[in-house]
Amino acid sequence: MTGWLRIVGLGPGAPGARTPDAEDALNAATDLIGYAPYLERFSPRAGQIRHATDNREELARARHALTLGANGHRAALVSGGDPGVFAMASAVFEALESGPASWRALDITVIPGITAMLAAAAHLGAPLGHDFCAISLSDNLKPWALVLQRLTAAAGAGFVIAVYNPRSRARPDHLREAFTALRKILPPATPVAFAAAITRPDEHVTVTTLEAANPEQADMRTLVLIGSHETRVIARENAPPFLYTPRSTAA
Amino acid sequence: MTGWLRIVGLGPGAPGARTPDAEDALNAATDLIGYAPYLERFSPRAGQIRHATDNREELARARHALTLGANGHRAALVSGGDPGVFAMASAVFEALESGPASWRALDITVIPGITAMLAAAAHLGAPLGHDFCAISLSDNLKPWALVLQRLTAAAGAGFVIAVYNPRSRARPDHLREAFTALRKILPPATPVAFAAAITRPDEHVTVTTLEAANPEQADMRTLVLIGSHETRVIARENAPPFLYTPRSTAA
Repeated sequence: MTGWLRIVGLGPGAPGARTPDAEDALNAATDLIGYAPYLERFSPRAGQIRHATDNREELARARHALTLGANGHRAALVSGGDPGVFAMASAVFEALESGPASWRALDITVIPGITAMLAAAAHLGAPLGHDFCAISLSDNLKPWALVLQRLTAAAGAGFVIAVYNPRSRARPDHLREAFTALRKILPPATPVAFAAAITRPDEHVTVTTLEAANPEQADMRTLVLIGSHETRVIARENAPPFLYTPRSTAA
Repeated sequence: MTGWLRIVGLGPGAPGARTPDAEDALNAATDLIGYAPYLERFSPRAGQIRHATDNREELARARHALTLGANGHRAALVSGGDPGVFAMASAVFEALESGPASWRALDITVIPGITAMLAAAAHLGAPLGHDFCAISLSDNLKPWALVLQRLTAAAGAGFVIAVYNPRSRARPDHLREAFTALRKILPPATPVAFAAAITRPDEHVTVTTLEAANPEQADMRTLVLIGSHETRVIARENAPPFLYTPRSTAA
């Protein structure tokens, strides 16, 4: 048997938002590797081996998946959302670069998925309709001062900002500090949305303003969208508002 | 019959990268509206009406789709990639905001798709593995000076940059000017990739450096990825290199 590694994006959660290519890879695999809650999102085939791991051990998980593939297994390493956006794909290539030369001959494919900011944006309307950026607030892997510098640069240049990993028990105050920094640049009425568990049973979304945004609303699973000064809210009767950023801007 | 409007993301092209939710909306629609090449990507059901339009008439197309929905049709407005990323969703909400109040009661849903930068990134490895931004080089809807300012701010702050709409007959020199601006900020060896028609039969991808990047390689259908100073290339024998941006950075 020739081994391979597929790095599979599960999308936001519901099977309707998962691509056929992702399903095919999950079905063809002999081994499924991933953070336990992601592995619980789909039913295993008979005979498949599940390797559930802790969320923090990304590099060890990546090496494990590469080793399985190199040893002739058909390994599917699963990520929520898209594997290339603050998820597992980058860890695999880090492991590949520093690992045995033989790993580079392995058949490795990344299968993209609907990442959280696209699912959240679709739910809200079209807040990413103009230039935007995606930034992780986690300072496990970069200095916090750099995060603030990037937020400030992006907001100042007029990008809408999608914030991943906004808050965790280990860093409860990061989102508060981020809002404080952004309030110096963006108008108080700038729309802000919190989106969690989109397409899943516990989905919840709130739309507020930068002035009123309460960082306590977010946890590690929340995607926070911060508008630009162009982002608009369309009110509706008996329905949540739509949020969108116009395609055009004068400045 | 109760009308609705679904704004449907077709993904990069191949059916394997299109979600079941998108397929369901296409099947349930009475009317399909979109730029002709997108409508040709899937087979219509018997009885469905196709409204193929020119690519430039986005706002007129959006109003047409809203009118069909408001008149009791089940209208599916199709976009390549994700409708919310430099595609049709924002135009719909612009039309909605300025249109008749009755339109706000319409059942409108955006169905996300795999946008070009995610498809291109997956093909290449994990170039979007760290903070990144997406920017359109089209100056139909914003001043060119603002585009340059945003590119400069993003590159200076360490974001990887996904460039949409890099070049067209009407603006053949924009990508050249963008590269010139970025060469003042980023090292000559910064990886640059051109990706076109990912997952489609005419798919082609090249990896080069900012120093060597030739803007003539791009057309309107090309997604250009510009790395940060952290983005790395993993060479392989008898296979294209992988491109990835590490999750961690020191500065």
